[in-house]
Amino acid sequence: MQASDIKKVLSIGSGTIAQFIVTQCALFGCEVVIYAFSEDEIGAAQKAIKERVLQSIIDANMTTEAYAKETMGRMRYILTKEEIPADIDLVTESVYEDPAIKKAVWSEFAPYLPKTAVLTTNTSTMLPSLFAEASGAPERFLSWHFAANTFFRNLVDVMPHPGTDPRYTRLMADFSRRIGLNPVVIEKEVGSYLANTMLASLIVAAMKLLSGGYASATEIDRSWMGVQKVASGPFGIMDSIGLNTMLLTLKPLLNETELAPLQALVDGGHLGIKTGQGFYTYPDPAFKRPGFLTDAKPVGM
Amino acid sequence: MQASDIKKVLSIGSGTIAQFIVTQCALFGCEVVIYAFSEDEIGAAQKAIKERVLQSIIDANMTTEAYAKETMGRMRYILTKEEIPADIDLVTESVYEDPAIKKAVWSEFAPYLPKTAVLTTNTSTMLPSLFAEASGAPERFLSWHFAANTFFRNLVDVMPHPGTDPRYTRLMADFSRRIGLNPVVIEKEVGSYLANTMLASLIVAAMKLLSGGYASATEIDRSWMGVQKVASGPFGIMDSIGLNTMLLTLKPLLNETELAPLQALVDGGHLGIKTGQGFYTYPDPAFKRPGFLTDAKPVGM
Repeated sequence: MQASDIKKVLSIGSGTIAQFIVTQCALFGCEVVIYAFSEDEIGAAQKAIKERVLQSIIDANMTTEAYAKETMGRMRYILTKEEIPADIDLVTESVYEDPAIKKAVWSEFAPYLPKTAVLTTNTSTMLPSLFAEASGAPERFLSWHFAANTFFRNLVDVMPHPGTDPRYTRLMADFSRRIGLNPVVIEKEVGSYLANTMLASLIVAAMKLLSGGYASATEIDRSWMGVQKVASGPFGIMDSIGLNTMLLTLKPLLNETELAPLQALVDGGHLGIKTGQGFYTYPDPAFKRPGFLTDAKPVGM
Repeated sequence: MQASDIKKVLSIGSGTIAQFIVTQCALFGCEVVIYAFSEDEIGAAQKAIKERVLQSIIDANMTTEAYAKETMGRMRYILTKEEIPADIDLVTESVYEDPAIKKAVWSEFAPYLPKTAVLTTNTSTMLPSLFAEASGAPERFLSWHFAANTFFRNLVDVMPHPGTDPRYTRLMADFSRRIGLNPVVIEKEVGSYLANTMLASLIVAAMKLLSGGYASATEIDRSWMGVQKVASGPFGIMDSIGLNTMLLTLKPLLNETELAPLQALVDGGHLGIKTGQGFYTYPDPAFKRPGFLTDAKPVGM
C-alpha cells in the first residue's frame, strides 16, 4: 500500500481531536466514516466540524465555502460496527484517554476492521504497545498522534511499537505529508512522544528554580522568553495546559517540596487560564503586557 | 545611589563581551574607563568597538555615524590600577572564565576601587559568592551577566549572592533598564542563571531520547521546532554553542551511554558550526532547508 492508496478513513470517536483529524483527511480528498457512540455525538460533531473546524480555515482564507461544503460531503456517520465498510484503508482511534477504555474499544472493533487497513491510535500519553494485541493486527498497528487543530498546527507524531511492520510507519509518514502535515517519525515508543518529553524536562527545571527560591515565575519566564524568543515561558505554558493536568504530569518527576507552589495553586482552585488565575492572572497576564520584554530601540537619533 | 547616579563605569577587561558592555553604557551616556592588560588589547578593543559593535548598530539603523563617534568619545583606556578614577560608580569585570583568575583579579583591584561603587562580575557559569570576599565589599558585589551582543540581545541577569545588600540588586535592575536592557532579577544565586539552567535540562532530555534510540536528532529537533515555533531545536542549539563546550556542560548530568553520540562527534573532531560538522552539516543544515517544516497551505482554492 502507498500513501495514495489511502482513500477511505474510519474514525473511531467523534470528539474534538477526531473532528480535526477527519476534516484534515477529507480536505485532502479522503472519504471519512465517523463512528460515534450516540446520535447526540453525531449532531455535536457535525456542528463543530462545520462551524468551528472548517470555519476557522475559511476565516483564515485557506479554503472556500464551496470547498468546505464539498469536504463535508466526504464525511458520513455510523453508529454500529456492522456499518463499517469493507474497504477502509486507515483507522484512527480517538476515544477517551483511559487505557482500559481504549483496550476494550480496540478489542470490540477488531473483528469488524478490514484485514489490510492501517490501524492507528491517537493516544497522547500511552504507549501503542498497550493496545497492539487488542487491535487484532499488531504488525499494522501504531500511534498517529495530533495535538490540536491539525490544519494550523500541522505536526503529527508517527510512533510504532516494537511489533509494528516498518512499512506501516513509512506509509503513515508519507500519508501525513500527502495531507499537508509534518510527520515526526519516532523509532522506539516513548510515553509522551518527543516534544512533550522535552517540555516536561524544561518545566521540571523551571519548577525546581521556583520552589528552590532562586527566582519568581515571572523572572523565570522572562529569562526563557528573552533568550529563546518565544511568546510564553514554562509558567505561561503551564497556565495554558491547566494546572491540574500539570500536577498529574509532574507528580512522578518532582518531590513534595518542589511541587508545593503548584499544589498550592491547585488547592486554591486556581487552575490557570480556564479559571482566570494560575501563575498569572488572566485575561491580562504580566508576561503579555507591553514592556515585559522590550526590543532594542534607536539611540542618539 | 539611584540608577541615574551611575555616570562613570570601569570595565576590568576589554574582550568581546566587555566591548559590548562598555558600548551599551556609553551609548546611554555613561563615561567608561576600560582597563586592558596590554597595549595590544587596547588596539584590538578600539578596532572591534568601532568596526564591529558600533557598526552593527549603525547598519541596523539604530544609531548614526555621528552618535557612534560621540559614544566612542566617552571611552578611555587605562593600563594601570593607579589610573582608576576615584569617582567610578560601577565596576564590571569580564576577565577569563576561571575561578582562580577572577579571584586574583578582584583581590588585586579591591584596594583601588572607590568605596561606594557597585561591583559586578560578568561570570557566565560561576556563583558570585566565590569572588564576593575578594572584591573587598561583599555587600556591594553581585553578578551582572550578559550573553552576547547586548544591544540586540538585550537581556541581562542581575544575580546577588547571600551577602549582597538588596539595594544594589534593585539598583542594577534599574540601571539595566535605564540603558535599554531587560533585567532578569534572580533572588538566590544559581550556577548557570535561569535560561541556561532550563536549556541544559531540555538538552539532557533530548540527549536521552537520542542515545536511547527513540528518534534521530533531526526528528527530535523537528518536533521541538514545530511545537514551540522556534528556529532551532536542541541539537541545532548544541551545534551553535560548540560540541566540546556542550560535552563539558553535560558530563555531570548524563552517564557514558547517554553521552556517547556527543562524545563520538567530539572524538571525530566534529564540534558543530565552527568545524562545519556536528549533529548537522554546515553551512546548509537539514533543519534550515525549505520543507523541513511546512506551513499550512490553502486547499481547494
